[in-house]
Amino acid sequence: MLPLYTFASDNTSGVHPQILAAMIAANHGRVPAYGDDSYTERAAALFREHFGEDVEVFFVFGGTGANVLGLASLLQPFQAVICAETAHINVDECGAPERFSGCKLLDVPTSDGKLAGEAIRPLLARRGDPHHAQPKAISISQTTELGTLYTAEEIRALAEFAHREGLFLHVDGARICNAAAALNLPFVEFTKNAGVDVLSFGGAKNGIMYGEAVIFFNTAPAREFPFIRKQGMQLASKMRYIAAQFLALLSNDLWLKNARRANQMAGLLAEAVSQIPQIQLTQPVQANAVFAILPKEIIPRLQERYFFYVWNEQTGEVRWMTSFDTTEEEVRDFAAFLKSVLVRET
Amino acid sequence: MLPLYTFASDNTSGVHPQILAAMIAANHGRVPAYGDDSYTERAAALFREHFGEDVEVFFVFGGTGANVLGLASLLQPFQAVICAETAHINVDECGAPERFSGCKLLDVPTSDGKLAGEAIRPLLARRGDPHHAQPKAISISQTTELGTLYTAEEIRALAEFAHREGLFLHVDGARICNAAAALNLPFVEFTKNAGVDVLSFGGAKNGIMYGEAVIFFNTAPAREFPFIRKQGMQLASKMRYIAAQFLALLSNDLWLKNARRANQMAGLLAEAVSQIPQIQLTQPVQANAVFAILPKEIIPRLQERYFFYVWNEQTGEVRWMTSFDTTEEEVRDFAAFLKSVLVRET
Amino acid sequence: MLPLYTFASDNTSGVHPQILAAMIAANHGRVPAYGDDSYTERAAALFREHFGEDVEVFFVFGGTGANVLGLASLLQPFQAVICAETAHINVDECGAPERFSGCKLLDVPTSDGKLAGEAIRPLLARRGDPHHAQPKAISISQTTELGTLYTAEEIRALAEFAHREGLFLHVDGARICNAAAALNLPFVEFTKNAGVDVLSFGGAKNGIMYGEAVIFFNTAPAREFPFIRKQGMQLASKMRYIAAQFLALLSNDLWLKNARRANQMAGLLAEAVSQIPQIQLTQPVQANAVFAILPKEIIPRLQERYFFYVWNEQTGEVRWMTSFDTTEEEVRDFAAFLKSVLVRET
Amino acid sequence: MLPLYTFASDNTSGVHPQILAAMIAANHGRVPAYGDDSYTERAAALFREHFGEDVEVFFVFGGTGANVLGLASLLQPFQAVICAETAHINVDECGAPERFSGCKLLDVPTSDGKLAGEAIRPLLARRGDPHHAQPKAISISQTTELGTLYTAEEIRALAEFAHREGLFLHVDGARICNAAAALNLPFVEFTKNAGVDVLSFGGAKNGIMYGEAVIFFNTAPAREFPFIRKQGMQLASKMRYIAAQFLALLSNDLWLKNARRANQMAGLLAEAVSQIPQIQLTQPVQANAVFAILPKEIIPRLQERYFFYVWNEQTGEVRWMTSFDTTEEEVRDFAAFLKSVLVRET
Repeated sequence: MLPLYTFASDNTSGVHPQILAAMIAANHGRVPAYGDDSYTERAAALFREHFGEDVEVFFVFGGTGANVLGLASLLQPFQAVICAETAHINVDECGAPERFSGCKLLDVPTSDGKLAGEAIRPLLARRGDPHHAQPKAISISQTTELGTLYTAEEIRALAEFAHREGLFLHVDGARICNAAAALNLPFVEFTKNAGVDVLSFGGAKNGIMYGEAVIFFNTAPAREFPFIRKQGMQLASKMRYIAAQFLALLSNDLWLKNARRANQMAGLLAEAVSQIPQIQLTQPVQANAVFAILPKEIIPRLQERYFFYVWNEQTGEVRWMTSFDTTEEEVRDFAAFLKSVLVRET
Repeated sequence: MLPLYTFASDNTSGVHPQILAAMIAANHGRVPAYGDDSYTERAAALFREHFGEDVEVFFVFGGTGANVLGLASLLQPFQAVICAETAHINVDECGAPERFSGCKLLDVPTSDGKLAGEAIRPLLARRGDPHHAQPKAISISQTTELGTLYTAEEIRALAEFAHREGLFLHVDGARICNAAAALNLPFVEFTKNAGVDVLSFGGAKNGIMYGEAVIFFNTAPAREFPFIRKQGMQLASKMRYIAAQFLALLSNDLWLKNARRANQMAGLLAEAVSQIPQIQLTQPVQANAVFAILPKEIIPRLQERYFFYVWNEQTGEVRWMTSFDTTEEEVRDFAAFLKSVLVRET
Repeated sequence: MLPLYTFASDNTSGVHPQILAAMIAANHGRVPAYGDDSYTERAAALFREHFGEDVEVFFVFGGTGANVLGLASLLQPFQAVICAETAHINVDECGAPERFSGCKLLDVPTSDGKLAGEAIRPLLARRGDPHHAQPKAISISQTTELGTLYTAEEIRALAEFAHREGLFLHVDGARICNAAAALNLPFVEFTKNAGVDVLSFGGAKNGIMYGEAVIFFNTAPAREFPFIRKQGMQLASKMRYIAAQFLALLSNDLWLKNARRANQMAGLLAEAVSQIPQIQLTQPVQANAVFAILPKEIIPRLQERYFFYVWNEQTGEVRWMTSFDTTEEEVRDFAAFLKSVLVRET
Repeated sequence: MLPLYTFASDNTSGVHPQILAAMIAANHGRVPAYGDDSYTERAAALFREHFGEDVEVFFVFGGTGANVLGLASLLQPFQAVICAETAHINVDECGAPERFSGCKLLDVPTSDGKLAGEAIRPLLARRGDPHHAQPKAISISQTTELGTLYTAEEIRALAEFAHREGLFLHVDGARICNAAAALNLPFVEFTKNAGVDVLSFGGAKNGIMYGEAVIFFNTAPAREFPFIRKQGMQLASKMRYIAAQFLALLSNDLWLKNARRANQMAGLLAEAVSQIPQIQLTQPVQANAVFAILPKEIIPRLQERYFFYVWNEQTGEVRWMTSFDTTEEEVRDFAAFLKSVLVRET
């Protein structure tokens, strides 16, 4: 029997039926390619309803492309991006930012995946000296790769720090819907209004099939983005199908319902496992991820039935993700199985 | 009234219903992300049915990604790709090959978009001299950007030339289905069996939504492709939906029916316009493109109703593309409109 | 016996004694590294005497570095450089411009190595379309790789064309001293005053050992050059020795005496060989290069005694270069040997 | 009065007279450019006397070029280099390794600038996973940027670790002569014989003017180096003058006398300052660098007369370098001045 992928990642889920329905509805007639179609126009307009009229919206194929191209539009190759050591751009993109942009990543160790101005300041010491890659952007993930969350105030403080120091603030929003649901705030409140310059707005972790939006609140760098997108191999020919997905996701609060469900299921899971004495949560459960340390010997047993990532082989820390389609029953079944393994193995 | 996109490009069409149905059918349950799923496994197996067991198959987001990454897997940055001046990699990818691979493109003027060994040989004169980018691959498009076709023999001759000279042969197969239909040959006959090393196998011009396959017949360079794909921002998380499309396209001869229809409609269109004395075809119509020189003054009138590309402003040469969903009626209507404009304007 | 390198290239010569003397004189005491020394300051000041106060001067290791970094400071990676097919950046730098800058080179066939606005205009047709690398600079060589020369008026016309079209004008001045001597004009007249934006000012073909200056007449892009130079691996630690060379070269008209000698010797050589009926000059001899077609069968015989480059194997075209230290006797000896070979072999 | 650069860096010194004499002696006649000359041949042969016949030697312009190109010849762009956080390639090359090679640097915090296998192992955890840049080389500096030294045994252990794990071992030998002098070993003992794959052999810190050698003990990657060197803008046209310098440096133990002197003077300086109670050495003084923590308030006073680098603004740690031409008197004067400032200011 194949293991279950229920808690492996929020991208093992399929596509939400309403999003698929929107794609099917878009499959009608011939339209201009490469984004000159009315679906793309309407999706961009819908983003502007959420973020304000004065933003620029571009669709790309995926999250790595969104991050790398967004950053490349902000930096010269001799400049550097400051990010958390755990950032997706730093550890999960196979060096794509460095290769495409030529830039260096300056990573900062953190306990919770979150950056703060004080930890960043020492990296700015050598500005103006041509021997050193010059910091020009801070990139944060909201929610972080550790399932934690920046408050709007924290982002505002980072943006103020960044801008005072002549840096841009970039946000990897692969899970921005989970963040908005957890903060119970409109997107705009903790992005544009907080001073963010460029946002990767992801959907694949929240029920879409493919595609991501790069949103420029600082619109000057957006002028060159169409060229960067094409040279970056991220320009979809039949773009209407990406647009249709975001039209569905951003309509009728589908994004919110999906993200809220995922977050609630993580909360439920955290609650269930936190009652087990041998298990220790390692991060606050603020969105749709649960990090926990398990007795190492039970991990292989658990993985016989459930695939999930071991975050730290040394400590026995693991990661469980929930998704828009996770059910209470799945959480209960998993917790029960976990307990039964613990009883059996320890 | 918006202009019609009927003959603008084969990527203004939507998705073939059988392909969309396969995507919908794949939307079931949770599966491993990033291609470790059974759909991807089956799609690769189906490609191997067409091409033989000893090939490696990888899916990427799009055609530019397929070309650039396929070439990058073959070349060191100080090497060069020889291609036709009209090649998509040379003129339509915004410098993506150069930026990602670091390689130089050496382009050869042609009358029909097709390369031949004799035109290539002078570019090999400076091999071994470190002052010059070193040719290491020939890249051809099948069908070409001018709607022309290489015979299997021509490809075999090019491959023999390439291999004798220590070069790889790469094929941009954005329209490989149109080529197979036109040649009336299995894919394998004019690719692997003819000596091709790496193929970009496209579907977006033949009824799929997104996704492209990079197929290695020379499998040594394939070992590093998973890393190149990720660093190249072309690894789809929910890969099952790309795989499902190719499963549908390659089953029940759907690829052939689609491509044949597109080719036939181009033939019909060529026949219709070639009877008009003021219009002169500029390329043999071998697949789904028609290139013709029109009286320049009628072009704006035609474009009021039909969007299409003017290939050469100086000469009045234009390009019309047909697609899997082009109908005889659409061709007749277009030809009739063209004639009426000619009568009115000239 | 080893062949003579007298006419092989202007960089087979050694270093002019006055330049070597200046290097020796600079070898005194400790000075700041990386160009913060008084030699570098004075050399930059001397360049400003020649070019005007409002220019920025940077020293790099060599000519390829000067060209590539100068261009990289002007262009974004999705942009393109227009150059002659024969340009050093296009054929003699092993793809360095593409790899470092990410940019595409758009090369124009020419008969004499010289670009003109009319030949460039068709390359501008697709500006604004993200599918195409966007021309942003024209790069010319003065003198050209074929030994020909732009007049100040021709450069002014090119600069006006460039600026009208939103392009920069870059000059590869590996042999700019030969050009100034041939034009009998101050440098500034056919560079800054003619509208050039950035100049590679070379000396290795005119008696220096190593080092090249990148001079920005358009000073905005110069702000980032210190970082580009370091990231481009062209920042010399003991920069005083590069500066000392240029101080000597630009003092007491040494640059002019050297270049004039080289040009005169090329004139003498051209005169001598043009009297030989079997030899046909293929380019006007305007500086220190002589291009000629020889009976092919004598080339190997000639090369037994004199090393030189065969420019075109098919036609038997060869290149002979003269240098600051070429003597009349050397020219006479070579012409005599050439005649004797012709008598013997044909 | 300008500050003295006596202890600022080992590259504020000039050129050793014997090296300058060798350059002057090489300034005779015309020789092939780009390294096809007899000086280059002899210099390579002399390196082979030191390192063994089966090595490949290439000259480049400088140290950053040597490091970046050496590494680029070993790695694919999706691979990564493991280095100390303090490594020159990581902090002092303005992102040159990332931009040119496309590779990621994985930096390891250290107390003394030295890497050990145990600290490296955790970085190897994700090999084979395409989401992560793949470690393929370890790069160490000998001596390190903190003036510390690897023993031959330590290098051998690192090389064995590296090779067991499928990694190359690269050495930044900007101060390799200081290391050999300190270890009192022939170069070969702690490089090739210890298992090093590629070495940057520097001389600018030990009395030469410019130029660096890249030495391949693992000769397979050397085959492509001529192209990488040219594309990397590091091919000198008049290479004889680089070769002549290394001929002098490596003859008559000049390299050893120079390095020994520099090391001795650092020892003398360390001895002098270690007797001052307010000053605390922070690294063992094993070669030609002295790191010390000073009372912060005296640093500006000291710098009025002597320029040197403040390594850590927070702690008041500073770096003093000695050179081949540092004299005992200079050390005594500096120590005396230091004491006088301490008396005055604290």
